[in-house]
Formats: sequence, C-alpha cells, structure tokens
Amino acid sequence: MFERVAIVGPGLIGGSMGLALKERGLAGTVVGVGRRQSSLDKALRVGAIDRDALDLKKGVAGAELVVLATPIRALQQLAPELAGCLEAEALVTDVASTKVGVIDAISSGLRNRPDVAYIPTHPMAGSEKSGPLAAEAGLFEDSVCIVTPLPNTFADCKSTITRLWEALGARVRSMSPQAHDRLVARISHVPHLAAAALLNYLDADETDLCGGGLRDTTRIAAGDPELWMDICRENRREIAGALNAYLEGLRRMKQALDSGALGELRELLKEAKSKRDAMGSP
Amino acid sequence: MFERVAIVGPGLIGGSMGLALKERGLAGTVVGVGRRQSSLDKALRVGAIDRDALDLKKGVAGAELVVLATPIRALQQLAPELAGCLEAEALVTDVASTKVGVIDAISSGLRNRPDVAYIPTHPMAGSEKSGPLAAEAGLFEDSVCIVTPLPNTFADCKSTITRLWEALGARVRSMSPQAHDRLVARISHVPHLAAAALLNYLDADETDLCGGGLRDTTRIAAGDPELWMDICRENRREIAGALNAYLEGLRRMKQALDSGALGELRELLKEAKSKRDAMGSP
Repeated sequence: MFERVAIVGPGLIGGSMGLALKERGLAGTVVGVGRRQSSLDKALRVGAIDRDALDLKKGVAGAELVVLATPIRALQQLAPELAGCLEAEALVTDVASTKVGVIDAISSGLRNRPDVAYIPTHPMAGSEKSGPLAAEAGLFEDSVCIVTPLPNTFADCKSTITRLWEALGARVRSMSPQAHDRLVARISHVPHLAAAALLNYLDADETDLCGGGLRDTTRIAAGDPELWMDICRENRREIAGALNAYLEGLRRMKQALDSGALGELRELLKEAKSKRDAMGSP
Repeated sequence: MFERVAIVGPGLIGGSMGLALKERGLAGTVVGVGRRQSSLDKALRVGAIDRDALDLKKGVAGAELVVLATPIRALQQLAPELAGCLEAEALVTDVASTKVGVIDAISSGLRNRPDVAYIPTHPMAGSEKSGPLAAEAGLFEDSVCIVTPLPNTFADCKSTITRLWEALGARVRSMSPQAHDRLVARISHVPHLAAAALLNYLDADETDLCGGGLRDTTRIAAGDPELWMDICRENRREIAGALNAYLEGLRRMKQALDSGALGELRELLKEAKSKRDAMGSP
C-alpha cells in the first residue's frame, strides 16, 4: 500500500501501527522518528519499525505516509517544522485523541504546502499502558477509528486513509472535528475522570480491600497523567460540559436514595444494565 | 473440616463455596437448598453441591455449617423459618453484601436458639455474573473476606469461620457490621452507581463507538438490578453519604476545568494513578 511510512512517535499507538502495517504487508519500510534513542531502540527491538531517526527531516524523507503519533503537546511543538520536511505529495495523518486544537496547529504548520495532504484520525484503541513495549499488531482489530476530514480534504485522501484503517482491522466513522471532540469528551474523557475521582475519594487502606469490580472500573485511571493533561487542556470546555451532564445523573441517583424513591433508582440500574449488555462482553 | 454443609442459595457465591469446599476436601457432603429445582439442577450439574433440597428443614437437617447465600430479600424472608430447622450446635453464616439489616433479621429469627452460633461474613468476590453456572472453585483466591462478629459471637466460632475462609483462599478482615456497611458503600456500591450513571448519560449510538476503557469501567453495571436494589435499599444512608463524597470530588474536577486551574487537575490525576498502580494489575 505504501513503499515507505514514517511514524513520528512510535509508542503504543504508533508502534502498534508499525507492527500491523508490517505484519499485513501494507508498508515496505517503516521509519520511526523520535526524540529519545532509548525509546526508538525499544520500537526497533519489538519490530514496530525497521529504521530509526532522531531527526524529523531525515526520518520523513521519502515517506509517502507520515503518521504523527506523539503526545499532543509534542505534536503542537513539531507542527511548525513539518512543512520543511515533507516530500511532495506526502499524505500526513495524526492519531491524536483530541482534534480541533491539534488540527489548528498542524494545518497552520502546513499552510504553505498545498502539495501535501493532511487528514486527521483518531483510532479509539489503546489502554492504560503506553510506550513501544505495549504495542500490539492486533490493537486496532474490532476497534473504531474516527476520521475527521477537513473542508479541503480530497476525496481520494479520505478513501486512502479509510482503506488503511480498515486494513488494520478498524471500523471507520467520519465526523467533523467538533463532533469528534464532543463525542470523546462524553465516551472517553469523562469516564477517565469518573474513574480517577473514585480512586481520589478512597483511602489507600480502602482500595486494599477492594474486589475485582473496583479494579476494572478504575483501570483506565492508571493512564499517564501527562497524556491526560494534554487531553484535558485541549478539550477543556467539552469535558466540562459532559462532566456536568454526568454529575446531573449522579445527583438524580443521590436524590432517589435520599428520598427513598427506589423505584426510580431501579429504572436507572435497569437502563444501565441493558446498555452494558448491548455493548457485549467482556 | 465439616461432615455436612448446607448452602442455602447455591448461586455464584454459594456455588463457588460448594465447589471450593469439595475441591479442597473441607466438606463431606454439600447440600444445596433452593426454591427452584432448575437452579438446583444447575448447581448439581457443575458439581457445586452433592445433594439438593427444595425444603429448608430437610436441606439443613444434620448440617454442622449452614451458609445463607441467597439474595438479601430472600434471606430476610427465610430468617424466621430458620430457627425451626437447625441442628443443635450448628454454625450459621451468611455471605450478604450488606450487614446491619441482614444481621438484624437473622439474629431476630434465631433469638430462641441460644444453642446455635451465627457469624456474618462478606466475601468480597464475584462479578457482574450470577447463578450457579458462573460458580468457580477459585473465586475466593486472593480475595478479601470481611467477618463481622457480634457481641455474643464465641471466639471459637470466629476462629472456625476464619479458618474456613482462609482455606478457601481469602484474606480475612474483621470489623463491626456498621464499619462494614460504611466501607462497602464506598468501595463497592458507589463505584457501581458511578458505572451505571456513565451508561445512563450516554446514548446507545455513543456506547457503540466506545473503546476498551469504557467497557472495563462499566462492566460491573451489567450486574443484576434486583440484587443491587436489595443492596441500595439495605444500605441506603451509607451509600447516599458516600455518593455525596464522590460527587464532591467530581465537582472539584469540574471547577478546575471551568476555571482553567489545570495544575490542580494534574495533582488529582497523579494521585489517582498512584493509587491505581498500588492496587496492581490487572
């Protein structure tokens, strides 16, 4: 599919893309670009990349597809450099968990490069882990990848990126960057804060006694706080709005408990079970 | 350890006890007592019990240990009958998830039977599943079992029940019924409501798009709503208080997002990660 792919930031997501691209014969050569040699060495060791580069320009030279997979803050820092590094006709994509601000930074960096195409994506896969050692070729199997085309995105670029993600096992959904940021605030960012708040309000001697339920419920809160701070900073308003809606539901439960309106609570628990059952196991 | 054990309600917890008692040679015969033959047949089929009885008196006849493992409501209904069924010197225990109200009902049922000993326990194991087909001999391995001795509990009964749960693989902690109910409101009941509220506030087309994070976070909300209603009814005041404390923490996060005080949010996320890391994987 591609002769040469550059993955800038081959960590959990970028590294998993590298492994999957190679395993499925979708890329001739995968070059990993990073700021720390130790991290690139890990990506080489697990086979997520074939070659490594500390220098952005050297790393992306000759690449038809450039995947920006660094943390959001690093992505915003490298955006201005990008224009001077890309081959003509290169296809650029990013995999960041928030879109509006990231797209601003990258589009602005590329404003003098009408000869390259940029199409943003967000693979909704991953876990509380990070780094190339956590990468897995099957990470995107049965996951959803959201593509957020821009007004100037060519149809053939959108179709190339769609075919790429489908080849990696994902179901592709397309929506605007704004709709994306609102959606992920609701289905991913607020759940993260809800899990973190459960841990915060408990004492360590209480978490010691917990069963598997609390363990599952709070697993995501083990994610890297700096990655999550990037997300909270970028998507602050949407998260605050979604958190408010979540708080509203919890307050309704609290009122039902306080007033003994247990019939209402039963309906809420039934609704929750039926939605969770519809999501399937595990 | 026991010649004959009666398990009243051999579902997930009772059935797992039956399997574990037999696998570890701790019981000669395990009798399952239930109200539905179809459920007892399942318990027989998976080997959780050796014999079955639909009649409480017949089922507990000759049993040195009687484990009350039905849902809370059924437990309260059968409590008055119990006194007329037990052998002299029988040891009675229950495994209910709330203690104060359950202990009231059982102690009151047994008030004219000074010759039997009752000691309440709560094995902190289980999952969103229920019923004998979900039973596992290893369910209590590395779990915590809380024992809540009563003022009139003999030391040797406490030590027998402690040895029993340790033999099933659990770590035993002892506390008052009141302390238990406060603790589980915090570490189990509020997390359940928090997970349910996440599902309630999302639309079905949003949960469709979710990744593994939301799946883990909401798994417990697939639990049987009727079992959870029993818990909410019994432990209503403690849950309402704990939910208030949880809401307080979420409101602090909301304020930090609204005001842009992201340094405070970072500290909260770091604290959560460090507590979750201390709980170990998975």
